[in-house]
Amino acid sequence: MAIEFNPMRSLIFIRVAKEQYRHQLRHWLYRHHIADSISQFAPYVSKYAYYPALPVPPGGDVFGAHNFMLTEHYWMVSDFDPHVKNKTFTEYFPPEVLRWQGNIPDVDPGSLPENLDGDRAREADCAAADNTTSPFIFAFVPVWWDEELKGKGRTPEDGSNYRWLTLISYPEGVSQEDGDKWVFGDYLPVFQNHPATTRILTSRVLQEVNHCRYNRLIEIWFDGPEEWDVVLRKAQASIAKPAWATVDTFPYLPKYTGYASLFLGDIAESDNMTQYHGYITMR
Amino acid sequence: MAIEFNPMRSLIFIRVAKEQYRHQLRHWLYRHHIADSISQFAPYVSKYAYYPALPVPPGGDVFGAHNFMLTEHYWMVSDFDPHVKNKTFTEYFPPEVLRWQGNIPDVDPGSLPENLDGDRAREADCAAADNTTSPFIFAFVPVWWDEELKGKGRTPEDGSNYRWLTLISYPEGVSQEDGDKWVFGDYLPVFQNHPATTRILTSRVLQEVNHCRYNRLIEIWFDGPEEWDVVLRKAQASIAKPAWATVDTFPYLPKYTGYASLFLGDIAESDNMTQYHGYITMR
Amino acid sequence: MAIEFNPMRSLIFIRVAKEQYRHQLRHWLYRHHIADSISQFAPYVSKYAYYPALPVPPGGDVFGAHNFMLTEHYWMVSDFDPHVKNKTFTEYFPPEVLRWQGNIPDVDPGSLPENLDGDRAREADCAAADNTTSPFIFAFVPVWWDEELKGKGRTPEDGSNYRWLTLISYPEGVSQEDGDKWVFGDYLPVFQNHPATTRILTSRVLQEVNHCRYNRLIEIWFDGPEEWDVVLRKAQASIAKPAWATVDTFPYLPKYTGYASLFLGDIAESDNMTQYHGYITMR
Amino acid sequence: MAIEFNPMRSLIFIRVAKEQYRHQLRHWLYRHHIADSISQFAPYVSKYAYYPALPVPPGGDVFGAHNFMLTEHYWMVSDFDPHVKNKTFTEYFPPEVLRWQGNIPDVDPGSLPENLDGDRAREADCAAADNTTSPFIFAFVPVWWDEELKGKGRTPEDGSNYRWLTLISYPEGVSQEDGDKWVFGDYLPVFQNHPATTRILTSRVLQEVNHCRYNRLIEIWFDGPEEWDVVLRKAQASIAKPAWATVDTFPYLPKYTGYASLFLGDIAESDNMTQYHGYITMR
Amino acid sequence: MAIEFNPMRSLIFIRVAKEQYRHQLRHWLYRHHIADSISQFAPYVSKYAYYPALPVPPGGDVFGAHNFMLTEHYWMVSDFDPHVKNKTFTEYFPPEVLRWQGNIPDVDPGSLPENLDGDRAREADCAAADNTTSPFIFAFVPVWWDEELKGKGRTPEDGSNYRWLTLISYPEGVSQEDGDKWVFGDYLPVFQNHPATTRILTSRVLQEVNHCRYNRLIEIWFDGPEEWDVVLRKAQASIAKPAWATVDTFPYLPKYTGYASLFLGDIAESDNMTQYHGYITMR
Amino acid sequence: MAIEFNPMRSLIFIRVAKEQYRHQLRHWLYRHHIADSISQFAPYVSKYAYYPALPVPPGGDVFGAHNFMLTEHYWMVSDFDPHVKNKTFTEYFPPEVLRWQGNIPDVDPGSLPENLDGDRAREADCAAADNTTSPFIFAFVPVWWDEELKGKGRTPEDGSNYRWLTLISYPEGVSQEDGDKWVFGDYLPVFQNHPATTRILTSRVLQEVNHCRYNRLIEIWFDGPEEWDVVLRKAQASIAKPAWATVDTFPYLPKYTGYASLFLGDIAESDNMTQYHGYITMR
Repeated sequence: MAIEFNPMRSLIFIRVAKEQYRHQLRHWLYRHHIADSISQFAPYVSKYAYYPALPVPPGGDVFGAHNFMLTEHYWMVSDFDPHVKNKTFTEYFPPEVLRWQGNIPDVDPGSLPENLDGDRAREADCAAADNTTSPFIFAFVPVWWDEELKGKGRTPEDGSNYRWLTLISYPEGVSQEDGDKWVFGDYLPVFQNHPATTRILTSRVLQEVNHCRYNRLIEIWFDGPEEWDVVLRKAQASIAKPAWATVDTFPYLPKYTGYASLFLGDIAESDNMTQYHGYITMR
Repeated sequence: MAIEFNPMRSLIFIRVAKEQYRHQLRHWLYRHHIADSISQFAPYVSKYAYYPALPVPPGGDVFGAHNFMLTEHYWMVSDFDPHVKNKTFTEYFPPEVLRWQGNIPDVDPGSLPENLDGDRAREADCAAADNTTSPFIFAFVPVWWDEELKGKGRTPEDGSNYRWLTLISYPEGVSQEDGDKWVFGDYLPVFQNHPATTRILTSRVLQEVNHCRYNRLIEIWFDGPEEWDVVLRKAQASIAKPAWATVDTFPYLPKYTGYASLFLGDIAESDNMTQYHGYITMR
Repeated sequence: MAIEFNPMRSLIFIRVAKEQYRHQLRHWLYRHHIADSISQFAPYVSKYAYYPALPVPPGGDVFGAHNFMLTEHYWMVSDFDPHVKNKTFTEYFPPEVLRWQGNIPDVDPGSLPENLDGDRAREADCAAADNTTSPFIFAFVPVWWDEELKGKGRTPEDGSNYRWLTLISYPEGVSQEDGDKWVFGDYLPVFQNHPATTRILTSRVLQEVNHCRYNRLIEIWFDGPEEWDVVLRKAQASIAKPAWATVDTFPYLPKYTGYASLFLGDIAESDNMTQYHGYITMR
Repeated sequence: MAIEFNPMRSLIFIRVAKEQYRHQLRHWLYRHHIADSISQFAPYVSKYAYYPALPVPPGGDVFGAHNFMLTEHYWMVSDFDPHVKNKTFTEYFPPEVLRWQGNIPDVDPGSLPENLDGDRAREADCAAADNTTSPFIFAFVPVWWDEELKGKGRTPEDGSNYRWLTLISYPEGVSQEDGDKWVFGDYLPVFQNHPATTRILTSRVLQEVNHCRYNRLIEIWFDGPEEWDVVLRKAQASIAKPAWATVDTFPYLPKYTGYASLFLGDIAESDNMTQYHGYITMR
Repeated sequence: MAIEFNPMRSLIFIRVAKEQYRHQLRHWLYRHHIADSISQFAPYVSKYAYYPALPVPPGGDVFGAHNFMLTEHYWMVSDFDPHVKNKTFTEYFPPEVLRWQGNIPDVDPGSLPENLDGDRAREADCAAADNTTSPFIFAFVPVWWDEELKGKGRTPEDGSNYRWLTLISYPEGVSQEDGDKWVFGDYLPVFQNHPATTRILTSRVLQEVNHCRYNRLIEIWFDGPEEWDVVLRKAQASIAKPAWATVDTFPYLPKYTGYASLFLGDIAESDNMTQYHGYITMR
Repeated sequence: MAIEFNPMRSLIFIRVAKEQYRHQLRHWLYRHHIADSISQFAPYVSKYAYYPALPVPPGGDVFGAHNFMLTEHYWMVSDFDPHVKNKTFTEYFPPEVLRWQGNIPDVDPGSLPENLDGDRAREADCAAADNTTSPFIFAFVPVWWDEELKGKGRTPEDGSNYRWLTLISYPEGVSQEDGDKWVFGDYLPVFQNHPATTRILTSRVLQEVNHCRYNRLIEIWFDGPEEWDVVLRKAQASIAKPAWATVDTFPYLPKYTGYASLFLGDIAESDNMTQYHGYITMR
């Protein structure tokens, strides 16, 4: 059986459960995880980058905003291809990481599952959620956007962008088609028509790759959080509730499990495969 | 006159006046300023790094906490040596930058000084402060710390550190010696004696280099913001007001002009001279 | 529909219409285009390099010699695959660039097409030619040469090479087979038999990728321009005119639209994905 | 015919025939071969690394231990795909290299085959062996191990590893299945059951790629050579001779042609595509 | 005797005597000289870059225009400090290099001096000139320009620059002061006053370092060669001949030995210490 | 007190006490020590490289041959300058490292000194020796060799070199002058006169920097270990015993404490400040 060439992009939305954990999570990522990951997948991953989250603006919490960072990979082979097996080394992935990320309850590490490794954590993806935690988000999307609804032709010379990434999970029983009907028919037009949005891009999440709970990735750009606020107030006031809503108020889906988002600028903090030079500390 | 070998470290504490400006400031730094700076000083600067600020913890504002980043240079020649003159190119430094950083009032750029360049901005250093703004902080310190008061021998293997950098400016008329007497006699002992501090380092600011207003740099390490809070409550309760206090309550000096600080982890976001590869955007 | 793994090499031959534009074209390429391009295609391009053209030798003009540079990409996916769509950012590509490259008339930019972007420019590829301009050349070829006719086994230790790249476009109505018959039967043998040529390589242009006008890429190596001159005089004197010639004199095809070439040494000026570090100016 | 996406890993086991040649082989590799190789295959090789061999421990010779290094490539396209042809440059590969590596007799270079290039040398792979030399080993294996028999979950934080790579070639007439039956039924269980082995990984060699003589790659990890010695004494004493043995004593196959191995630590000496910066000498 | 910290910049103006030699000179520089040089001086040179010369514009020859490139070093210690001695390796510097650069007559290499190395060539600096050759130019200048006469505050965002570097050697018997009097009193004002010049910078050559024949370095910037032509025609028409002129016509000094120049854009072709990755050839 | 510009080179000769430790020592160096060191001294060290030792040839042991590697630094400021103090982080330096290097007895780590850090280890330099161990060698020498006695003008194009580095410590009571008299009068002439040596370089060790026990560094080059053997047999037979010899047989000084050496090729395994990219493991 030949290995399939399957270029894909994956996105991991990461939050910190408490500010106490922010520098610890950075420490693990930069001291251990970048090198462990590159060691593992350098031969078949063509880009691996960390994008720092901008602070969540007031009103962002209801959209399941993640306050830490985006991890992005570009794969040449699906990470879930059956050939991808038997890792020489497993990445060092202490269970505290999932606690810091809010994927498991914020309790004593001794009471956490043992031997939890990165693969199992990522597989836990769309299953770990409960009332006090948020799922580990690992969403695969095409390398090129399915659709661009606004702002075609924008160049890096056109100025700095405030980019809002959103993942939407339609409730159980709602098909991709039905959910998309609301997104394209009711939700996105409000953003498209608002002069304060500069760019809209969206792709279907490739749920078949890893059974991710999210159905759709949407990226909407603004000049800054003030414009985001103006547009979102308009959206809240004008977007009708879909029949399948599970939450009464906009955006009509529960945060994290139904609606996850992240605020970014245009550039990575670390394009790991070209910029990582080891764990160098400040003197 | 020979050029003096004068290895020094400089620190620029940066805040953003509003969240609206955070991504714009990053855009300018990474799209313009890193390359302009390297072009200018690569032959005589041996390290140039950006360290992202951790979010200001509750209670941090009174200490003049800066919420954006630290810029660090290591110079082989003083940037204020008389030989350092006649730049082939001046760095591109639009006046909005000072507005974003809160160094000038948050008003229409058209009303801002024209032709303001990076040199003039940095020279404005300790003079720009008024009630609504904070000074441009550009402090020179020795390459090696003057004194270490706690935690000698700590290694990078000892875990992640929550590092609190503080610059203190003694009021006019208070000599370095008199100010230091309070710092070493009253202020630092409370931190040294508290079990929740892991490391204390301090150096006199080399005010003679650029007439910086600050007198002393102090770095105190904690396990995280929760420990910082515990220790600071203790400090607030137990450190006596110096005779020369200009503010009634701890830390007895006005924020920004008397007391400036920054919360950091151990690592840079970008060690510019080794990691910068151009302005690469997220697809 | 799966994305096809389709490794290909592409060549862009670039000239400057006037010397007035040479440094401006370099400025745009190094200040804007490298970073914009890497941002766009890093996940699916494995090499992206600029090779500076050697000066066109006397007599080279009739061969449509390009006097600026070769841009080379190695693609994992065809840049014209239907999946390659909806760019997050479009590269900054002011219309002056096409003027500088001689692809559009050398007139006031105000009279040039608006909103011309890099994609449209490259699509204009083999169509933009008129009497005063030359086409934008964007030719795809296999990663490995179809045929080597001379010099097998030459190594980098064998000395510096003066490499002449030629693209030939057979006139309308002349099939690849008919054109190739002349190239392999009449044209190349003269070079093969001449002792002053050291290496001959050729591939069919993959016209199906982007409807490029050129049919065949030929690379012939010499010790230097003096040897090129000797051989070309011989070729001119001895190669018979094909029945389908559209120009009376050797090489029997019009420059640029029928015959395009470029003189190179062995090495790139910039292997962009490994060597680009931002736009650093000379002090 | 489309080019097949065929990600594979290849291993070249290298020894030096005499210590006189060790620095000469390094000189050729670092002064010539890395750059020549990158020039050739950068567009379709995603990793290219050199791992220095640890010294052969006492008793290692009988296992065909190689005392110089491992060369590792990760290919996106098989190096033996019919499209891979007509190299622009051949790597500089003087015949002395094969003498230094012990692949040809240790005689005057003048008596060696002329015009031997790297491709022919690698093709000579499993054919060059005679009583005084060892074959050029070029074995292709899957990117991911076929099977892991021990130590699943080991991370880079678990300590330094002493890794023993072994290639086994079953005698003529012994099928892969029959040979594997002994390896999995008699040979590997002794290692699996011994507490001093920490990790066991194995893959079938992809003999179909280049007719390599070896059938199976096995990697067994220990804490160090002392543990290797303990385990190997046990193996020697307890592993029964297979019916098809061609040598009377353990490991029952002739060194080099039947049994080749290499002792490594965890890291490369040079990850050439990211770390090579030219041939820089010690002052 | 302590080693003096003596930061300096050095400039090597390079031309090719014939186009036949251009690719050979590049071959030697990139295949041998960069690595040899870095090996030698990496510990005490902080920048080492090659800037490609723009083609010499019509009329440029009389100004001793160099048509190949500028080599630039930034030294921490003078390369002529008495401590700088006993090189472990000498750079590989075949005598043909000086022939290619036009520093020695264009004759059979067999008749050239043997054992000529890089140091001797550079020492030959200002002495090798005769009627058919030009001197090896190796001029030391301060790290920062002595004076800027026009264009203060220009930034890299202000557009692409066409930079004309000139070295002037006053005739024997004319002191620095007397020569400068003409340069500052008669020569430079014409350029300062012309609206088509955008920047003027000048420094005294540090002749004491290596007895260089040139007295002064001047850099004048234009928008392009057309503007250079306009200004130079004006200069030719309006600048009076100094009493010490040795040539009747402007610029009143012999090309190469009295007047050497170079046309550059803003950026290096190779910033060798950060960008060189070995001699990688085009496939 | 100004900081002195004091460019120096330092050499650390390293051996492994047993092969059991070789991969462990590499693990510590590459996983911890490179990054810890760069973090510490990047602002004032201009080169930091590791050169792998070639295997000790038969007969090399009596010369105190080190079988692991050479660590080389180029300092801008002496590492023992009084300003160099109060390290923010101490390098992680477990006491096992000194055991692995044979600087302390090969016993249970529990019985080793606690809190031993890198600074103390290096200070232990020339004091730790006893019958079963060898001193930690940390020798400072000038950036440029004091004297070259043979092979001036040798270039990297002249072939691969087998380089023998020797440190000699004259017995107590023997002055530098007296010791040098024997070295230059009796010892080195034998090597100079032998046709099988290609290069001889020597410098006085700067003992004043760190009280190093060694007096002189000598580097002698051969074509390979066979030539070394030939020359050393000659040396043994012909070099007379100095009056101050403390050992009866050549080289008349005790290994390690009186005579330490290292066999190297021309290139580093890792030029850490340009090549280190983190601890990347083999898959």
